[in-house]
Amino acid sequence: MRAWPKQVQIREVGPRDGLQNEDPVPTEAKIQLIDALSATGLQRIEAVSFVHPRAIPQMADADEVWAGIKRHPDIRYSALVPNVRGAQRALAAGFTEIEVVVSASDTHNHRNINRSTEESLADIAELVTLLHAANASAEVIIATSFGCPFEGDVPPERVASIVDSAVAAGADRVAFGDTTGMATPRRVVDVIGAVRENHPDLPLLCHFHNTRGTGLANIMAAMELGITEFDASVGGLGGCPYAPGATGNVATEEVVHMLHDMGIDTGVDLDRLVEVAALAQEIVGRELPSGVLRAGPRYRTIA
Amino acid sequence: MRAWPKQVQIREVGPRDGLQNEDPVPTEAKIQLIDALSATGLQRIEAVSFVHPRAIPQMADADEVWAGIKRHPDIRYSALVPNVRGAQRALAAGFTEIEVVVSASDTHNHRNINRSTEESLADIAELVTLLHAANASAEVIIATSFGCPFEGDVPPERVASIVDSAVAAGADRVAFGDTTGMATPRRVVDVIGAVRENHPDLPLLCHFHNTRGTGLANIMAAMELGITEFDASVGGLGGCPYAPGATGNVATEEVVHMLHDMGIDTGVDLDRLVEVAALAQEIVGRELPSGVLRAGPRYRTIA
Repeated sequence: MRAWPKQVQIREVGPRDGLQNEDPVPTEAKIQLIDALSATGLQRIEAVSFVHPRAIPQMADADEVWAGIKRHPDIRYSALVPNVRGAQRALAAGFTEIEVVVSASDTHNHRNINRSTEESLADIAELVTLLHAANASAEVIIATSFGCPFEGDVPPERVASIVDSAVAAGADRVAFGDTTGMATPRRVVDVIGAVRENHPDLPLLCHFHNTRGTGLANIMAAMELGITEFDASVGGLGGCPYAPGATGNVATEEVVHMLHDMGIDTGVDLDRLVEVAALAQEIVGRELPSGVLRAGPRYRTIA
Repeated sequence: MRAWPKQVQIREVGPRDGLQNEDPVPTEAKIQLIDALSATGLQRIEAVSFVHPRAIPQMADADEVWAGIKRHPDIRYSALVPNVRGAQRALAAGFTEIEVVVSASDTHNHRNINRSTEESLADIAELVTLLHAANASAEVIIATSFGCPFEGDVPPERVASIVDSAVAAGADRVAFGDTTGMATPRRVVDVIGAVRENHPDLPLLCHFHNTRGTGLANIMAAMELGITEFDASVGGLGGCPYAPGATGNVATEEVVHMLHDMGIDTGVDLDRLVEVAALAQEIVGRELPSGVLRAGPRYRTIA
């Protein structure tokens, strides 16, 4: 009945999605954090985003961060870009794996970048062409896939039709963003089910926020549907722009901790990762929400 | 493939397991909290425990609390007792639904009550006889069912054999306590699987702590195995005696929030419950870990 995968690949997004939603930290701290993450066994790290510094001052030093880190040859580093200008910067910096975002909710897309979802999809088609011409891969992240803070529920058929457009535009992969933590196992089943009808083999990734505590339950539901790629943020770095004080991305060490105890390999050294979570907490100077950081892994017994 | 239940019954344990692990609060506050919980649609509330006031000063006023609350005729209120003396007090107070605890781990049982698991099981046989003679039902809670902070992993066969003993002693129901939040979906599958071999129809309840973020994932796993009764604590009241600052019971409103969005009925009015979580936070005077309390239910959109 239950089909858990043997392996799961985690993309660490703390340096990007995490730090983007924290008070700005020094460039050296970002470099230190990424270098520490690179030594944990993680196979993928979203390192930076190339956005306008006035829009997101936390990412203004993307070029310096990328130039400063020690790149591990076995790790796939990626960057997120909002538009052609950002894509050009990312390509110039040497990135070959790039993410672009569109929101499934028109209202959210408008608030984010003042364009409709349809307009953004047209932009993305151009962007993908540009990236492919430069031999870079393009992942389309569909924000608010499981619900929108302004519109409420988002029909799974709408998400599926955006996937159709993204694939028609040449997207190499698609990710579903649970931007404000509105996903539950039911929404996961609905969205993945609707998308899989037309795209049985498309590489899919889920990006859950733990805003309402459902992060790991959603990962369980997604794994049972065959999804084996997840975003997570060390320490649970980050937050929710629409709910001050709320929890952000699901914490990488909570994901790894659960998966390992379920016999699912991630390639990550959990003890090292917990040390990096402590470093992340030190860097941002506030208590991070990760339970595994606070209580330690379940195998640490009391003498 | 997926079999989610139509209904789930939640037993609110905030007034007992929650407050037992918080700094003591006034009797009136406990009464106010239980009365507020009684108005949310919850069907079961663990109201107090009758333990020695030197052992757990937080529960010293159990009689006053029980005498002070407005008992709702449709709610099953229960009390936890550690021994014959406690059982006598609970029966004298008029409780007809009583819980007794034994730890699956010998070390944990010794630390808790200075007896071996086997000795406690013998005591429980006596206790059940006493309770049944007074027309009260007896639930046996097996603490550290999914792991022990001292011994580490607990063999599922050991938990199953304790269930055998509890049933032989006359237990009406059995609950599995994830005392320090060591459960993961794999441990849930292992324990429930081992127990179900000999007891296909025994009423089982799971009591998860969210210490390492797996609370709702564990509930998912348990539901997929047919479990439909869960403990939870409003606001996530409580903590972990062995990990200072760690999260306690899974938060009732996080459970209800996820279940309702999955189309599973709990009978609870979620908006009212969130108000009670805010009250619980006010009573204990510290920020509680509940994401649904902080961010609000997913259906609360921004205007």
